[in-house]
Amino acid sequence: MAISALDHPLLAGLLGDPEIAAWFTPEAEVDAMLRFEDALSRAEAACGVIPELAATEITAMISGFRPDLSALGQASARDGLIVPELVRQLRAAVAEPHRAHLHFASTSQDVIDTALVLRLEPCLGILEGRLKEILASLETFSEAHGAQPLMGRTRMQQAIAIRYADRLENWIVPLREVLAELPTVRAAAIRLQCGGAAGTLDKLGDAGQSVAGALGQNLGLPVPARHWQTNRRGLIAVTNWCGAVTAALGKLGQDVTLMTQNEVAELRMTSGGGSSAMPHKVNPINAEALVTLSRFVAVQCGGMQMSAVHEQERSGVAWTLEWLLLPQIIAATGAASLRAGALLGSITMP
Amino acid sequence: MAISALDHPLLAGLLGDPEIAAWFTPEAEVDAMLRFEDALSRAEAACGVIPELAATEITAMISGFRPDLSALGQASARDGLIVPELVRQLRAAVAEPHRAHLHFASTSQDVIDTALVLRLEPCLGILEGRLKEILASLETFSEAHGAQPLMGRTRMQQAIAIRYADRLENWIVPLREVLAELPTVRAAAIRLQCGGAAGTLDKLGDAGQSVAGALGQNLGLPVPARHWQTNRRGLIAVTNWCGAVTAALGKLGQDVTLMTQNEVAELRMTSGGGSSAMPHKVNPINAEALVTLSRFVAVQCGGMQMSAVHEQERSGVAWTLEWLLLPQIIAATGAASLRAGALLGSITMP
Amino acid sequence: MAISALDHPLLAGLLGDPEIAAWFTPEAEVDAMLRFEDALSRAEAACGVIPELAATEITAMISGFRPDLSALGQASARDGLIVPELVRQLRAAVAEPHRAHLHFASTSQDVIDTALVLRLEPCLGILEGRLKEILASLETFSEAHGAQPLMGRTRMQQAIAIRYADRLENWIVPLREVLAELPTVRAAAIRLQCGGAAGTLDKLGDAGQSVAGALGQNLGLPVPARHWQTNRRGLIAVTNWCGAVTAALGKLGQDVTLMTQNEVAELRMTSGGGSSAMPHKVNPINAEALVTLSRFVAVQCGGMQMSAVHEQERSGVAWTLEWLLLPQIIAATGAASLRAGALLGSITMP
Amino acid sequence: MAISALDHPLLAGLLGDPEIAAWFTPEAEVDAMLRFEDALSRAEAACGVIPELAATEITAMISGFRPDLSALGQASARDGLIVPELVRQLRAAVAEPHRAHLHFASTSQDVIDTALVLRLEPCLGILEGRLKEILASLETFSEAHGAQPLMGRTRMQQAIAIRYADRLENWIVPLREVLAELPTVRAAAIRLQCGGAAGTLDKLGDAGQSVAGALGQNLGLPVPARHWQTNRRGLIAVTNWCGAVTAALGKLGQDVTLMTQNEVAELRMTSGGGSSAMPHKVNPINAEALVTLSRFVAVQCGGMQMSAVHEQERSGVAWTLEWLLLPQIIAATGAASLRAGALLGSITMP
Repeated sequence: MAISALDHPLLAGLLGDPEIAAWFTPEAEVDAMLRFEDALSRAEAACGVIPELAATEITAMISGFRPDLSALGQASARDGLIVPELVRQLRAAVAEPHRAHLHFASTSQDVIDTALVLRLEPCLGILEGRLKEILASLETFSEAHGAQPLMGRTRMQQAIAIRYADRLENWIVPLREVLAELPTVRAAAIRLQCGGAAGTLDKLGDAGQSVAGALGQNLGLPVPARHWQTNRRGLIAVTNWCGAVTAALGKLGQDVTLMTQNEVAELRMTSGGGSSAMPHKVNPINAEALVTLSRFVAVQCGGMQMSAVHEQERSGVAWTLEWLLLPQIIAATGAASLRAGALLGSITMP
Repeated sequence: MAISALDHPLLAGLLGDPEIAAWFTPEAEVDAMLRFEDALSRAEAACGVIPELAATEITAMISGFRPDLSALGQASARDGLIVPELVRQLRAAVAEPHRAHLHFASTSQDVIDTALVLRLEPCLGILEGRLKEILASLETFSEAHGAQPLMGRTRMQQAIAIRYADRLENWIVPLREVLAELPTVRAAAIRLQCGGAAGTLDKLGDAGQSVAGALGQNLGLPVPARHWQTNRRGLIAVTNWCGAVTAALGKLGQDVTLMTQNEVAELRMTSGGGSSAMPHKVNPINAEALVTLSRFVAVQCGGMQMSAVHEQERSGVAWTLEWLLLPQIIAATGAASLRAGALLGSITMP
Repeated sequence: MAISALDHPLLAGLLGDPEIAAWFTPEAEVDAMLRFEDALSRAEAACGVIPELAATEITAMISGFRPDLSALGQASARDGLIVPELVRQLRAAVAEPHRAHLHFASTSQDVIDTALVLRLEPCLGILEGRLKEILASLETFSEAHGAQPLMGRTRMQQAIAIRYADRLENWIVPLREVLAELPTVRAAAIRLQCGGAAGTLDKLGDAGQSVAGALGQNLGLPVPARHWQTNRRGLIAVTNWCGAVTAALGKLGQDVTLMTQNEVAELRMTSGGGSSAMPHKVNPINAEALVTLSRFVAVQCGGMQMSAVHEQERSGVAWTLEWLLLPQIIAATGAASLRAGALLGSITMP
Repeated sequence: MAISALDHPLLAGLLGDPEIAAWFTPEAEVDAMLRFEDALSRAEAACGVIPELAATEITAMISGFRPDLSALGQASARDGLIVPELVRQLRAAVAEPHRAHLHFASTSQDVIDTALVLRLEPCLGILEGRLKEILASLETFSEAHGAQPLMGRTRMQQAIAIRYADRLENWIVPLREVLAELPTVRAAAIRLQCGGAAGTLDKLGDAGQSVAGALGQNLGLPVPARHWQTNRRGLIAVTNWCGAVTAALGKLGQDVTLMTQNEVAELRMTSGGGSSAMPHKVNPINAEALVTLSRFVAVQCGGMQMSAVHEQERSGVAWTLEWLLLPQIIAATGAASLRAGALLGSITMP
């Protein structure tokens, strides 16, 4: 499909990010959900909430389980999400008397939110690695050419003489800052969701916190003091961080579009976009894409903030809006990091 | 892929719209581009700009042409769009001396914008048909139950007694208005793009307007007095219209979420979303989705307005931003129309 | 006060618009509300709903009425709007037995929405006049210099030779289009609001439509077939139109910032912003402001679309959001029209 | 004036915040600028950059200086900002040979950004104090009534029984989190801006860092390792934090609008908005305003992210957009904190 240009096969080279996209396939999503259900059963068995044998059977079943993706997709028309159907399929695949022990005391949101977090974590790792490379490229460029004089410009007019290093530092510092901020963002977002039907883990009685603790341990996820079913700040910390990343790269792109103007020629493109009408042109398509993606992410960040208000114990309205926005923000940030890498590989001093 | 929830196989039942999506596949997009190139050659031949034989050969070749989609996708990394590579593939498939006559005097933007418009037109038709059905459903419901008393509510508090018909009319009138506005929207957006490299059709000399006229006729598209390469108002008319449609349906959804509250019970759901934790529940997932989609489209409409400013003769920044936003707005509007239809099929009087 | 830079005394020269602002003062707003209450009484008397004598007394009282603005402001803390307190003040100023006839069968929303429309109408007139002048300036400039050669630029790179007239036409056509669209926008927005407490004019019985007709005539406003208390499309037509206006002017501004770059020098500024550090600079502040205002309005237009969904018969949430956005959009569009005028007065050919 | 509803005298009780507004008056702004110029002169004298006598004279002059605000406002039409004119007025008020020592080596952006930060700091203090009070109110309410049963609701339908304390905790935790995050936000934003004409403090030679250090000390502001003229992340940290605050309060408001519905009656309003048409009503105007303000701030936060990309050494476009958005976000957050306080003072258990 190609509703989203971020997913568009024909724009893959410009706006795609295969590594990030791999974490947002249906298979990856269901796989993360299965990890949750498996870990939950083991946690509940360890805490004496369900029989050990049930957990053993569930783990064995899940290890060989193949979901009926088509039935899952159809079920979303009925339930608004796939978890009830996935649980139905899973329960059908495990023998009695273990069925009721699968997904026991849990709820769709625990599954979906945790499955998201399990995939966001590697996405942040991918972005971190690329940003470090971009930073290193910029530092190398600055070391090599930073002493060269450059016209400083304010409000689109020549101001005073500076050096290339001065402008490069304005690209470098924001990247250092977003990298420095990443541990805080991870701590805010990468954590277990475990609240049950209405956030009270009601079916677990006194075992609620111990099950949550064991579940978190099984999944390698920190366990927050309280569920975050209606408190989406952790996810918004991620998307705001993506806003900062794409803004930092957007400035790089904006500056390069101006520096590579023919008359200005402060940087030169060794390669770039061709034109079907004007073969002589070298278009700064990577630089332009960085500006585009920074604007796109800014728009979506406003939408994410709009999705922050959940009424009562769970809002289908707000939650579904988040689903529409968050993956695109991650993918667009990924695309920006790829474009920035390509850009830095294709510019030289004039 | 599933970066966009609108395209997500597992959310297809909630947020998908297969009919709209079919117009945004790579195949549909390239097919529309091929229609453009074919119609262009025939128009240029009819105007004496290229030999008749060239047009005949090009038409014959295109009728059997199978694009290398993978190479197109890779080319977008180089050129920022696929047209130069598509033209290369097409030219390679036609014998000399006709190659230079293919895509003659045209430019990527003419191809891409026109190919978009050729697909927007049927999308608007799909939406129109569904909105008429939704309207008819509402009118039927109002005729059947409109005389029943309903508590009028303002600012979330009981106000004065009204009838069901009064509230239904508040759902109906905006839909009638968006349908009435559709011809104006179509006239603004569904029109040929034909400007050449920098909007001046420079290579066509005096034949520019006659080629444009013949090209529009070949494609069944009105020919505007001037190209709209940097004037995106027609497309924004479409997305603003989608904003109005989803707002109208969003009100329907918002009201239904409130009317189906257990204590209020002004409408009853005969079916609706199940819960993995609470099988007794009937969740108003269609109504919620309508609110979600209205908010999603509102956010994207702001982004489309942001993409309206093209610098100089063509902005890669602004144009690419448009690509990221417009298809999603259309698809989300399609999804809303499907959800509204499903909603109206699943509510009854209490 | 100066929460809004559009209202900021120190930024008045850059972002202010005194003519538009005059229609958004508390005095102008209350004055429009008084016009409504006066016209309502006369309409209701003409239709036999209230005694002629009551209308005469009310008209006489209103002609000399001086509202207690401070008490109105405090009342908004209690009621969320000022109309209940304004009606209280008005009723206190008219002798019995006429008091209950004032504001009879009406509601706050009828007063506030109509009072807004009565002020939007002259604002649209102000904008129309200025846009016509801007258009004339551009046409004059094009006639004088349009034949001169200009480098056409796409994706920030030199493309092919065009003429100044070609680029100017890209500034001119969108302005012609927004002017051509204005009658449709006026028809959508400039119309009476008259629905009563919950949109049913319940207290007027059979006289509802005749009172509305007479009220519209008294105010010089068209009477729509139905109230628009929850149907905000007319107002959004205005704000979307403002989006189109500021985008058209934003392109002008964006292009001028690029054309007046020192190395490019396709246009020259005869005056412009000075710098506290670099007295030699001539900053393109008007051109920059046009880009800024186009982005600002784009953001707010997304917000207006978000405010379109009113739950039930009236949403305090959505309506108040509209109040926060709409005046700023009008004022920002006004400021853009002033900046564009100043810009065109300060650029010449190089 | 009243372009912004946040500043509107007639809506002062609903959307105003006099304490925050006091920091955004022209007088407060110019006063902060004067503090900067005074502190700069003393810092430069201490570092031997200008004569001690010059600093003494400048300090004495500033202590009695009365700016010509009207001339400042007019100057913004010429310069896009007021600092050149303010510096002119200041220099005219100090005797030679000291004039050139005033504002020496500085630039408008250093003055304006630092003057903003000096006023943001007390605004954050105001918000912090109020949020602590709101938190204490909620904790008191929860202690008093938390054990009472409440119907848990998900997706707008009854789910399972919870207690009032459970829902209150969903209001409390986000507030605790935003308070805990405030030191980080302060550290990111409340810091000196000192970069000179193009960020290189070029006129200060080797004295740059020591002047910046002394200037920061004089103003009580931390001195960052580097200027942030094009790196707006600190300010965006503030506005994103405001997004989190208003979302937290927006959830409170949204829930209260639902809990005070007549049929639901989970909370009771002891006072609230009256209606001009229906005196019996008690409208949840404070709760509604919280939802409105959360949406308003979400929209503006997207805009702030859009303003993050400064081209080259300073962007008039991006910076001016920030001026249009940031004060409104602060003021709207202030208004939300006042509305939340009023709301909690007017609800009781049913």
